[in-house]
Amino acid sequence: MTDVEIEYCVPCGFLGRAEEIQHHLLQQFGQRLDRVALVTGDHGVLTVSVDGERIWDKSEDEYDPDLILRRVRPHVGT
Amino acid sequence: MTDVEIEYCVPCGFLGRAEEIQHHLLQQFGQRLDRVALVTGDHGVLTVSVDGERIWDKSEDEYDPDLILRRVRPHVGT
Repeated sequence: MTDVEIEYCVPCGFLGRAEEIQHHLLQQFGQRLDRVALVTGDHGVLTVSVDGERIWDKSEDEYDPDLILRRVRPHVGT
Repeated sequence: MTDVEIEYCVPCGFLGRAEEIQHHLLQQFGQRLDRVALVTGDHGVLTVSVDGERIWDKSEDEYDPDLILRRVRPHVGT
């Protein structure tokens, strides 16, 4: 059971970036993930959490979908 | 609090359709939705549920993102 949440700032127009991250993860891992949720937020947020653990944050980390993928991988079943 | 789940069949290649439905809903309702999750499934599933209630099912309903939007609307806060 692997549950990913991508919280994104709606007024900032981060929907496209959140969708891009989600697409990368679902393309790569498919049914090895149970779900990927886009969670609406504001105040500039763009974060990725796996099973409740934050693994990427726009305010601290480079925007690189492959980096995010590498950080999700250890949480994913085989 | 409005929580949408789109379950889609991964081996059928329904990711694109699930993403399209999700995009329509988030473009339309933004922060009036709390989250829209893509849930991985198989056996041909493509369904939309709002707060646990199934409001659209590919096996019964026409594929029309606007129809889905109209069925979600009554569940969405103002």
